[in-house]
Amino acid sequence: MKLKLLYSDLKSDIEIIEKELETALNSSSHFLNDASLHLLKAGGKRIRPVFVLLAAKFGQYDIEMIKKVAVSLELIHMASLVHDDVIDDSEMRRGRPTVKSQWNNRVAMYTGDFIFARALQYITDIDNPKAHQILSETMVEICVGEVIQIEDKMQLDQNMRDYFRRIKRKTALLIASSCHLGAVVAGADERVASHLKRFGYFVGMSFQIIDDILDLTSTDKQLGKPAGSDLLQGNITLPVLLVKDDPTMRPLIEKALAGTMTEDERQEFLGKIRESEAIKKAKKISDTYLQKALREVEALPQNSIKKSLRDIALYMGKRKF
Amino acid sequence: MKLKLLYSDLKSDIEIIEKELETALNSSSHFLNDASLHLLKAGGKRIRPVFVLLAAKFGQYDIEMIKKVAVSLELIHMASLVHDDVIDDSEMRRGRPTVKSQWNNRVAMYTGDFIFARALQYITDIDNPKAHQILSETMVEICVGEVIQIEDKMQLDQNMRDYFRRIKRKTALLIASSCHLGAVVAGADERVASHLKRFGYFVGMSFQIIDDILDLTSTDKQLGKPAGSDLLQGNITLPVLLVKDDPTMRPLIEKALAGTMTEDERQEFLGKIRESEAIKKAKKISDTYLQKALREVEALPQNSIKKSLRDIALYMGKRKF
Repeated sequence: MKLKLLYSDLKSDIEIIEKELETALNSSSHFLNDASLHLLKAGGKRIRPVFVLLAAKFGQYDIEMIKKVAVSLELIHMASLVHDDVIDDSEMRRGRPTVKSQWNNRVAMYTGDFIFARALQYITDIDNPKAHQILSETMVEICVGEVIQIEDKMQLDQNMRDYFRRIKRKTALLIASSCHLGAVVAGADERVASHLKRFGYFVGMSFQIIDDILDLTSTDKQLGKPAGSDLLQGNITLPVLLVKDDPTMRPLIEKALAGTMTEDERQEFLGKIRESEAIKKAKKISDTYLQKALREVEALPQNSIKKSLRDIALYMGKRKF
Repeated sequence: MKLKLLYSDLKSDIEIIEKELETALNSSSHFLNDASLHLLKAGGKRIRPVFVLLAAKFGQYDIEMIKKVAVSLELIHMASLVHDDVIDDSEMRRGRPTVKSQWNNRVAMYTGDFIFARALQYITDIDNPKAHQILSETMVEICVGEVIQIEDKMQLDQNMRDYFRRIKRKTALLIASSCHLGAVVAGADERVASHLKRFGYFVGMSFQIIDDILDLTSTDKQLGKPAGSDLLQGNITLPVLLVKDDPTMRPLIEKALAGTMTEDERQEFLGKIRESEAIKKAKKISDTYLQKALREVEALPQNSIKKSLRDIALYMGKRKF
């Protein structure tokens, strides 16, 4: 089933948000407009806006009001992608003879800054101090998380707590805040808002673990990049943490981190980890988060939205690639 | 006269802000703390906080409240410096054999993001929607300005309007908003707040023109980098715009922009532009802005703060390096 079918009821409202994103990214700079158009065309599942809208249905749903929250969160997500790209472009350059001109990185960094600033402008229109607090705290935590992710890179002496701390900040927090803000701004009951926030948090954790598993179990073609890229870039994910003390795996992992892994060794590593218990264990942990998310849905008042939340959570926690 | 002497009345309040900046930059990341300590040690004139505090004296001055605005604005200024550094480091690398590791740029970019986010957290504590609007609009304009500055780079077919548009966004807007926000958050009269905002704008314009003149008239030692760096980096400043159609200057300017200027040619260019009418004309334009700033001060209600504003404006508009 396609994700879009899961929220077909929201179709016209998602279109309103799509239009508003276009407006938001418009400015008096040609460079910015080009970069923004590129971003919009690249699309995206608009998961965060969908969660904002669904959560808002538990309160007084007003699309004119709630669209500002949805646009703001999607812009923050886009801005963080742009800033991640600044670095990823640099990394992809590594083996290449042509060094990408600095202009692009410079424009990309400032484009990210601009999109962040626009996100603020949208949330500014919401006359609700609690919403501002949630958003600014989320942004601080995400930014700290980005730096912690760098600190943790290449470090094999880390544990699952370090991993969970990273994916919480990298993914779960913004999804949790999307659900939370949707509910808060729509004036939903405080208990309902808390359940929705926790729902988003658990879905985000489950989703990111699956993402990290797929980086190891999918084909290069499915991923659009070499399987195992996370490890090759120095990011230690859950399945790797679960096999790192296995004496037949350790030398391969160390080679990957040192950047001296051959193609044969990469295939050997992927073959071994796919056969290991690590993937199953990681899936089980993801599933535990998914079940926790579903329990939060159960605690919500009866209405037609609950099914959508459940379906999206299952979709995100069970996807194959 | 030293700048600090101009606002000695604010000494203890500036110290409170200094402490708060330390607190604001603290986080659970070692990298962030190291980078932040470096920033704090590097100091700075804390011009924006000073303007916030002085403007707030025209309303109900409450340091506990107004310090949040002052800290927020200084953090935004710091974050933009950090992001500018990401690029400057890259540029300094150009001629060097050793390519600086990506880690540093990555950390610097995310450090800037973190400081921006912290700035938001501080302003979030202010329960005043107008303050949020002023700040978010200012940030959008500044970010658009950063990209426009890149677009305008190397372009000799630009006019003074392009230049004024750039320095407005680069410098004048944040100083204007510092004055404006100080007044608004302290609940100063609306007319007073408008005069203070315009005062900040004119001071900022005057200040940036002087800065651009000094890049050409100071010694390499005074600047800590080669005189004429702005042009060598592709930034066309007011004095250059005023001589660019002079047939004896044009070839030198084109060489500077093409990156083919020899050291002898740089000296020739600096000698010629220093003797030209361009510096005098640019100083006159800066002075016009300074006079406009002083007229805004005149329009303010009588009190002891007016003298400080006047003194700082004169200091900023008349400094020799």
